[in-house]
Amino acid sequence: MSKIESRLGELGLELPPPKTPVANYLGCKRSGNLLFVSGRVSRVCGEVGSDISSAEAKLAAQGALLDILAIIKKDIGDLDQIVSIEKLQGFVRSAPTFTEQPLVIDGASDLLIELWGENGRHARTATGAAQLPFGAAIQLDLVMRLGYSNDNNEE
Amino acid sequence: MSKIESRLGELGLELPPPKTPVANYLGCKRSGNLLFVSGRVSRVCGEVGSDISSAEAKLAAQGALLDILAIIKKDIGDLDQIVSIEKLQGFVRSAPTFTEQPLVIDGASDLLIELWGENGRHARTATGAAQLPFGAAIQLDLVMRLGYSNDNNEE
Amino acid sequence: MSKIESRLGELGLELPPPKTPVANYLGCKRSGNLLFVSGRVSRVCGEVGSDISSAEAKLAAQGALLDILAIIKKDIGDLDQIVSIEKLQGFVRSAPTFTEQPLVIDGASDLLIELWGENGRHARTATGAAQLPFGAAIQLDLVMRLGYSNDNNEE
Repeated sequence: MSKIESRLGELGLELPPPKTPVANYLGCKRSGNLLFVSGRVSRVCGEVGSDISSAEAKLAAQGALLDILAIIKKDIGDLDQIVSIEKLQGFVRSAPTFTEQPLVIDGASDLLIELWGENGRHARTATGAAQLPFGAAIQLDLVMRLGYSNDNNEE
Repeated sequence: MSKIESRLGELGLELPPPKTPVANYLGCKRSGNLLFVSGRVSRVCGEVGSDISSAEAKLAAQGALLDILAIIKKDIGDLDQIVSIEKLQGFVRSAPTFTEQPLVIDGASDLLIELWGENGRHARTATGAAQLPFGAAIQLDLVMRLGYSNDNNEE
Repeated sequence: MSKIESRLGELGLELPPPKTPVANYLGCKRSGNLLFVSGRVSRVCGEVGSDISSAEAKLAAQGALLDILAIIKKDIGDLDQIVSIEKLQGFVRSAPTFTEQPLVIDGASDLLIELWGENGRHARTATGAAQLPFGAAIQLDLVMRLGYSNDNNEE
């Protein structure tokens, strides 16, 4: 079992069955040493700050990250190939007066750092969105770093 | 004529005259093997799900992509220099209850895959926006991959 | 004193004391030759087009960039290590009918170009947001290019 998945188990978490993209795109795309990861919405729906609380949304962000990790594992074979987390973009479907987007997206950031340690620390942007696909509460996308390059130009 | 433009012609499409940026930025910027492409809004305006339909918005997304390709051709000289599409970000100006952003952005994704084949398959995020520049319906930006690097450090 | 800070002084501007991230993320993250910079909101709050004007928001965007540059200097030690600005993403908290996001984000783009010259010209996306962390008017994030790489795979 991979190191990352072992740590997930120690945290009492596991990868869900991988979902497939809902439209005409890839779950993730390799580009040299970078892995661009598609936006994935949370299974939890609703407007944060009205339909659901900040704490519920934080847990939904962790859940969306688990869905993303399951997709990446399916696509590239092994999460241990990811050596560093570079950038996280998080959109929070926000009630008009809700301004705690950073606390919500910590639900994903905290887990990335638990799994990848210091290399899991990342740049991040947490933004409010008026609406998201399927009425989801959260949407996350990422740029990660692979331990190898698929690009001949960079060898 | 370039291969990409030939395929465009086979699909009955053509590049429009290239627009110029509306403010103080570049149409696209080379960074090593990557090409960062500026956000471009659709010529079609309106809120999707109220002013215009999902199908109209999908066509608007295709139109915005054609405008982007025209700008890139003007800036880098030849679309065949682009070897792969890495990431597409799409914002859809959404009515409060509109949640079909992924179907709308397929208007751009479908064309990228028709033009670049398997290398045109990309990571993607489709998000709702409450408002966009000029009241446009759609905004797209991209990260693409060039067949060469402009960076001495990576040679 | 660094060249970039000298130019700042010539413009009558100076770096503010660096703020620390408000949640569990880094101010910026090195990835090969790239520097991914976290989203930073403006100190100025309010909805642009109702609470504050387009001109006030443009100045707020310049202020948010100064905060970002102070954070980067603290994190990487010297702004002269940045050789090029690749991509700027700007979110403008927009009143329902406000559509001048590009003019607002010029507040940051203009300064980047004054500081880095031709290499400061960048790709950019300026988008409307219904809400932002802390009710801020503006949020900016960036991808910059460093004059060296921290990645052994790219040597």
